[in-house]
Amino acid sequence: MQKQNNTEPALKVIFLGGVGEIGKNMTALEYGDDIIVVDCGVCFPNGDMPGIDLVIPDTAYLLANRERVRGIVLTHGHEDHIGALPYVLKDLNVPVYGTRLTLALLEPKLKEHKMTDSVKLNSVKPKSVISLGANFRVEFVNVSHSVAGSCALAITTPIGVVFHTGDFKVDFTPIDGNVIDLQRIAELGNRGVLLLMAESTNVERRGSSMSEATVGNSLNAIFADNIDRRIFVATFSSNVHRLQQIMDLAVKYKRKVAFSGRSMLNVVEVASKIGELKYDRDLVVEVEKIGKIEDKNLVIITTGSQGEPMSALTRMASDEFNKVKLGFNDTVVISASPIPGNERMVYNVINNLYRLGTKVIYESLAEVHVSGHACQDELSLIHSLIKPKFFIPVHGEYRHLKKHAELAMRMGMQSSNIVICDIGNCVSVTKKQIKLADNVTAGHLLIDGLGVGDVGSVVLRDRKHLSEDGLVVVALGINALSGAMTGLEVASRGFIYTKESENLMDGAKDVVTRALERCDVKADSGDWGALKNLVRKELKNFLFKKTRRNPMILTMVSDTADAIAK
Amino acid sequence: MQKQNNTEPALKVIFLGGVGEIGKNMTALEYGDDIIVVDCGVCFPNGDMPGIDLVIPDTAYLLANRERVRGIVLTHGHEDHIGALPYVLKDLNVPVYGTRLTLALLEPKLKEHKMTDSVKLNSVKPKSVISLGANFRVEFVNVSHSVAGSCALAITTPIGVVFHTGDFKVDFTPIDGNVIDLQRIAELGNRGVLLLMAESTNVERRGSSMSEATVGNSLNAIFADNIDRRIFVATFSSNVHRLQQIMDLAVKYKRKVAFSGRSMLNVVEVASKIGELKYDRDLVVEVEKIGKIEDKNLVIITTGSQGEPMSALTRMASDEFNKVKLGFNDTVVISASPIPGNERMVYNVINNLYRLGTKVIYESLAEVHVSGHACQDELSLIHSLIKPKFFIPVHGEYRHLKKHAELAMRMGMQSSNIVICDIGNCVSVTKKQIKLADNVTAGHLLIDGLGVGDVGSVVLRDRKHLSEDGLVVVALGINALSGAMTGLEVASRGFIYTKESENLMDGAKDVVTRALERCDVKADSGDWGALKNLVRKELKNFLFKKTRRNPMILTMVSDTADAIAK
Repeated sequence: MQKQNNTEPALKVIFLGGVGEIGKNMTALEYGDDIIVVDCGVCFPNGDMPGIDLVIPDTAYLLANRERVRGIVLTHGHEDHIGALPYVLKDLNVPVYGTRLTLALLEPKLKEHKMTDSVKLNSVKPKSVISLGANFRVEFVNVSHSVAGSCALAITTPIGVVFHTGDFKVDFTPIDGNVIDLQRIAELGNRGVLLLMAESTNVERRGSSMSEATVGNSLNAIFADNIDRRIFVATFSSNVHRLQQIMDLAVKYKRKVAFSGRSMLNVVEVASKIGELKYDRDLVVEVEKIGKIEDKNLVIITTGSQGEPMSALTRMASDEFNKVKLGFNDTVVISASPIPGNERMVYNVINNLYRLGTKVIYESLAEVHVSGHACQDELSLIHSLIKPKFFIPVHGEYRHLKKHAELAMRMGMQSSNIVICDIGNCVSVTKKQIKLADNVTAGHLLIDGLGVGDVGSVVLRDRKHLSEDGLVVVALGINALSGAMTGLEVASRGFIYTKESENLMDGAKDVVTRALERCDVKADSGDWGALKNLVRKELKNFLFKKTRRNPMILTMVSDTADAIAK
Repeated sequence: MQKQNNTEPALKVIFLGGVGEIGKNMTALEYGDDIIVVDCGVCFPNGDMPGIDLVIPDTAYLLANRERVRGIVLTHGHEDHIGALPYVLKDLNVPVYGTRLTLALLEPKLKEHKMTDSVKLNSVKPKSVISLGANFRVEFVNVSHSVAGSCALAITTPIGVVFHTGDFKVDFTPIDGNVIDLQRIAELGNRGVLLLMAESTNVERRGSSMSEATVGNSLNAIFADNIDRRIFVATFSSNVHRLQQIMDLAVKYKRKVAFSGRSMLNVVEVASKIGELKYDRDLVVEVEKIGKIEDKNLVIITTGSQGEPMSALTRMASDEFNKVKLGFNDTVVISASPIPGNERMVYNVINNLYRLGTKVIYESLAEVHVSGHACQDELSLIHSLIKPKFFIPVHGEYRHLKKHAELAMRMGMQSSNIVICDIGNCVSVTKKQIKLADNVTAGHLLIDGLGVGDVGSVVLRDRKHLSEDGLVVVALGINALSGAMTGLEVASRGFIYTKESENLMDGAKDVVTRALERCDVKADSGDWGALKNLVRKELKNFLFKKTRRNPMILTMVSDTADAIAK
């Protein structure tokens, strides 16, 4: 649906996916006949989504306009920016553009979904420029972040340039020496940028983020202080520069390195294949063979820094991991911060590690992690270099976007030139103004097992009810012809379970029997709606009176008339 | 069970209750014929306990030794120290000792449980000394904390003095002028303390906690900056000194005060009745009548600082609170930190407040809250004044206790004089040594509605399963005499819900029908165990193949032979 009848052509910025954070997982830019998509990531299910494996953006809008979608541009290789591609590309097989490491992190996912051959991946480098349709030229601009190969995007459109930071920080001493391309950013700003879209994750933090190199210094001190002990470092597998620093320290301190955790092994393989991770092969030993190596000659790099229940570190901490047993001569470094919502799980792991007698070093006590996101001063630097006409804060909860807008206003922007968005919003941008246009269908789809989108609000509501109050099932056999009850079973799950609960179930049976006596059973045969309602109401009252709880009540009626007639 | 055959009489310290935090909710001290209990609080259910209202300590050990329990001593009036009393006193009606505000906060709870008349409450003041049995004398020592009327305990036993800090901080400028009684603490230390039990909540924080008075300064600045706006302050109702400061500012800035939230109204009533909260009656207006008051003349003090789903603030933020509607002229101050685990809820409320256009001031941006717990330097001060022979760190997760032990060791204690405990541990202390003795029955009981302890691990496991995968119920009518199936219904909840899910349920019916054909139904009549297992197995395989999910499968069989025979 083009708006050619508008007096002035407009660029549209559409926030398609996400839960909580806005503009992080998937954003579309639309001009005339062309649509391009920035990132295609998963969000992780929150506490209101029990049993859900993954959450992906709802791409209904893109599917409805599929012939105009020119490609998907990836800023970097984190899950929340690439993880939904296998699902989205199934229905919308457009070209994908990203740096070498970004695509290398994507490939195992495509393989898992048997899509390697059908997908068109295009590798780009910083400073690469690609054309997408008649209306978009996208230039990749090198930035620092907690995964290598991260880029900002300078997107040239017929009405001006959009600068999208992606996830970034300003690191003057990055591990690979490739400092964020501030020259190019300054140049773009000098030539004039119509719209800045900048990430907002750390907008509440004053000053600047610390360099990744500071982690190396802290880890160096830990290696020096724990010279006779076995050392474990838990970190995000995608943080290749962190892995590089740990491996370099292993060489320095004459330790072998073992990797633990599936995603860690995956990333090490792909990152070393393309040369992003550099080490001698004989530095590494398989985790199955570490028994032969002295504690002081070993460092184990593991997943589980978020306390994920099935991760190697969590199982080691509960002493349920056969390959590695922890004890008094082990030092475990948690080189990561808990992602909001994971605090409980992370601290449970730390408590359990202490119970095993291990020494634990974690962030609230030591500088063993730095954030990959720009703090206030770094954001201000980008604003002052880009000097945009319009600004949309992205990548954050609503409060972060609001704070980022306030930061921009403190730097001189007018509030009428800033738009704060929610998922589903469509922003219309011309050379002269920026404003919210009509919303589009957007949001998220839940993935549970093989199902994409078949768990919706009804199922989640039932799951919540079941989890809080449990369930009582009444199975009734009724002869629809005579109206007689031919069977009655009552069972419960997740409701109550004691010596006395059988009495309660017997009481429930009495209640149902009495309710049936007051019901014109024959008249209700067919769907049994009235009967089911009566049973549910009476039983609900009875159980609430006895327990002050409201279990879900499920009444199943089968008509046994036919069977009896036979 | 006395251990008179021991060579040396021992004091036992028993950690009875809690989830996660150790020695916070309930601790028993036992010597010879006497047992005393320190605190009797609830813990709040964690994410693994869906549907649970409250968690109370398991008092099996006390009930088994009920004739020796001399009383319960309360350090202060927070829920996690007094909230379990109505449940525990029902079975163990011993005298209760606490300061006036502590008991005043307890009274509404006893009233709710219709226990006001039966319970023996004894009011004490700082410096009061009470005797409990032949072996314990308890002196109450004034400390600062986020609720007024907080005390440490100096417990004299036949083998020496135990000093228990309770929850505390060192506030040199407390709102009521009653500075922590460091003189007495120093005097006790000089005379010799056998065992120090000190809280560990903030042991990971360097330096000292800030004075409650700093919050007053921050709030004063906010009142001055928001002179034309309506102001809301969300805080803990029990923080009477915080309430006092806000009310004093209301007087200064000529605003009326309205209270919102049941517990806020409760606390204001009891605290003003005993003179802990001082204000002119005409300062306060009912929240129902605020419509008549200009924004600039009003401050509303509300519950909901933790984002609790049913709280006034949460409902205001979602625009679902009829008494108060928020908008562009409102400033909301969240004068509290998120309790670990509540971060998500708190930030949701803040996001929603911003969406309504209100200004929000919260802790990561302003000094509008201070902790009520001692940081490292305050803990060190207590250690250096008390100079205990033995030390048990309490009130914290295992990692906090471990860090607190390390702090004590840095100050010169030997590790053999320190014991780190878990729930259920019993520590044996003599004049010469401290060591772990045999564990006792301890832990927690779950409260759901009227039930105390009737939700156990089986019910919780089922709730978790139901919440993650949902449920499929198969109701079978079977004629046990002929072996014929007389009815078959299949239903699901929380599993799948789409247009296609009916096909899936039809497929499930086919699977069940086919399974029955392969089963010797008549032979299995009675408990139908084999038949149920077969149905469950076949259906599980079928559903997993189709969906990659494992719903709970509940098979209900009713024998319709009798009905048919009639």
